Amino acid sequence: MKKTVVSPSVPGFKLTGMACGIKPTGKKDLALIVSDTPAVTVGLFTRNRVAAPPIVWCRKVLRKSKTIQALIVNSGCANAYTGLRGMEDCKTITQNLAETLNIPQGKVLIASTGTIGRFLPTDKIVAAFPALKGKLSPKGWIDAAQAIMTTDLTMKTARVEYTHDNRKIVVGGIAKGSGMIHPNMATMLAFVFTDAAVEHSALDAALREANDRSFNSITVDGDCSTNDSLVCLANGKAGNAPIRKSSPGYKPFAEALTEVCRQLAIEVVKDGEGATKLVTIRVEGARTRKDAQKVGFAVATSNLVKTAIFGEDPNWGRIVCAIGNAGVAIKPDHIDITLNSMPLVKDGEPVPNASMRDLQKKMKSKEILIVIGLHCGAEQAEVYTCDLSYDYVKINAEYTT
Amino acid sequence: MKKTVVSPSVPGFKLTGMACGIKPTGKKDLALIVSDTPAVTVGLFTRNRVAAPPIVWCRKVLRKSKTIQALIVNSGCANAYTGLRGMEDCKTITQNLAETLNIPQGKVLIASTGTIGRFLPTDKIVAAFPALKGKLSPKGWIDAAQAIMTTDLTMKTARVEYTHDNRKIVVGGIAKGSGMIHPNMATMLAFVFTDAAVEHSALDAALREANDRSFNSITVDGDCSTNDSLVCLANGKAGNAPIRKSSPGYKPFAEALTEVCRQLAIEVVKDGEGATKLVTIRVEGARTRKDAQKVGFAVATSNLVKTAIFGEDPNWGRIVCAIGNAGVAIKPDHIDITLNSMPLVKDGEPVPNASMRDLQKKMKSKEILIVIGLHCGAEQAEVYTCDLSYDYVKINAEYTT
Repeated sequence: MKKTVVSPSVPGFKLTGMACGIKPTGKKDLALIVSDTPAVTVGLFTRNRVAAPPIVWCRKVLRKSKTIQALIVNSGCANAYTGLRGMEDCKTITQNLAETLNIPQGKVLIASTGTIGRFLPTDKIVAAFPALKGKLSPKGWIDAAQAIMTTDLTMKTARVEYTHDNRKIVVGGIAKGSGMIHPNMATMLAFVFTDAAVEHSALDAALREANDRSFNSITVDGDCSTNDSLVCLANGKAGNAPIRKSSPGYKPFAEALTEVCRQLAIEVVKDGEGATKLVTIRVEGARTRKDAQKVGFAVATSNLVKTAIFGEDPNWGRIVCAIGNAGVAIKPDHIDITLNSMPLVKDGEPVPNASMRDLQKKMKSKEILIVIGLHCGAEQAEVYTCDLSYDYVKINAEYTT
Repeated sequence: MKKTVVSPSVPGFKLTGMACGIKPTGKKDLALIVSDTPAVTVGLFTRNRVAAPPIVWCRKVLRKSKTIQALIVNSGCANAYTGLRGMEDCKTITQNLAETLNIPQGKVLIASTGTIGRFLPTDKIVAAFPALKGKLSPKGWIDAAQAIMTTDLTMKTARVEYTHDNRKIVVGGIAKGSGMIHPNMATMLAFVFTDAAVEHSALDAALREANDRSFNSITVDGDCSTNDSLVCLANGKAGNAPIRKSSPGYKPFAEALTEVCRQLAIEVVKDGEGATKLVTIRVEGARTRKDAQKVGFAVATSNLVKTAIFGEDPNWGRIVCAIGNAGVAIKPDHIDITLNSMPLVKDGEPVPNASMRDLQKKMKSKEILIVIGLHCGAEQAEVYTCDLSYDYVKINAEYTT
């Protein structure tokens, strides 16, 4: 699907990317992101119980330190399910990078994406550090965004700036578009940067909220990978009064962060394997937000709904069936469903004048919005997914380990 | 996939099937099954919250009566999401059938399978009753099994007989092969019959156990339909001492019932939409049977695992990733995985001599057995599924409402 690339530079951050020889194709596979000064940092990681060594490393570092200065990311190898040697490799790489940059090892995070069950070529990575350091630049976003791609077809970047209390604040980010999409390629990675001054607890709260409404609201194939990571660094370069949860600056900052995360997450879904359509499922009138999300995910993960959307078949019975499977106490006789504003079901009854021809026309759109009204409460949620096409099967059946 | 049809006749049951005009193709769409005498009956139904009116009807009847004499089943229309009129149609049909057969209405169950959101042509169904009654025969199994098919490619029947305490006991059954496979066609239906004399509570326990190890252990696309039903009738014609949970006859009976259900369930998976392989996932060494099932289902519902199996790609990283997503406390470093007896992962480490060529040969088999050892306890479970092929997408994208 088409996309516009924005170059999300944020004051005080330098980036770069290059090929160090992990990918046999010779494409870029190593990215480095450095903050001029230690930045307040929060990381959210996969809940998969087979978490990869880089995830274990980051969790450990972030338990000890609230600030980070460098992030080293490789693609082409996930360093997942690699046990003790995988952890040793994380140590070697971060230690060498810390020496190269002359910062403490405890200020370095590491992330990996690629095939599961393979060891990192640590020597090649470490050997690239001097060159990588030399290439660091505030304009290095594109190199960095490219170096974290695996089977992604598009680079994923986002940027929002706003002014609060006469200070311009920038939030920018890059992601690689796999998510739960190609867990064999192992990973959704997203890195978000801001020059805002934010207290750690406020950044933590804002990032959790942003994540809930972005990366945790997307699905392509329902598989959560072993390496999923979202890391946000705030370096304070904007010179604003430090944002606390209680300060008036919190809300606009949280909104900007959510918007950047949402844009990146939607890019990931649009670039989903074999995707031909972006599908938004908005669930309204739920008792709780969790209920709304459950219903949204039940519809978004249904292969039957997704193949029907690919086939442009307005088969609303499959949507109703998926709603009933969500494990949420609903009132089946009071459901409303619309598709791109056309009512399909109203108060539990099929809409008689939902003429098939009009409906089929609506389904030809590249963007499908399904709104489900539950009439059980006042909460809502949106879930983003894509359709399930022949190409999804092709990509995943023909990938060879 | 190939299959052998067994004609599972059970003493004391008469059956038949015919076309009454629900299917526009003119294929058989109405089945009738009658026990010579009221039979002890247990029914297990879908947990989908959008349960269809025939499900609501059966639950109501079975709350009042422990015995049933007749079962009327139609295909071509699921009578699902049809509200009050759907319930009225169930009443009209069962009342008319009861009059035709001269039995109480409260001894008649009804089941439907087909498209969701359409009303039953009640007049056509009722008009067929005299002809249907006239065709009833102990040899009518094939007509009945055919009349409950929708997009099934194969008829599904199973039969086991055994001798206990010098009495021959027969258990037979028919099913339609959709299950969670084509919920748009709405339904997995299975009807099992036995001439054993069984107390209601013993039949209930045995059927729940059988269901847990058969229909509740299969998945094709993870969608549980609005009409799923498993009904078992026991008419006592074998003349055995009535089986109680505590009697020595319980174990062989429960085993025979499980075997019939398991055979039918495996037929359903083999006939899964687009299926080219039967995949069995056996999880061993789990803390509880529920844990073992969760891990089995996490692997069996992973589109990434299923497309890899279709592509005959020995990508074990996807299996490990799915295990980690099961929501079960596992020890990632102590997992064993074999595929058709070939070790892939041993004690958390990739098996070095798992040569790719041998492995790819193993994956060409039509039946794939993945054994996962968790080393967390002594419980185990098997889950059955099929692969995810181009034809799955084709069938479900091109089906038009």
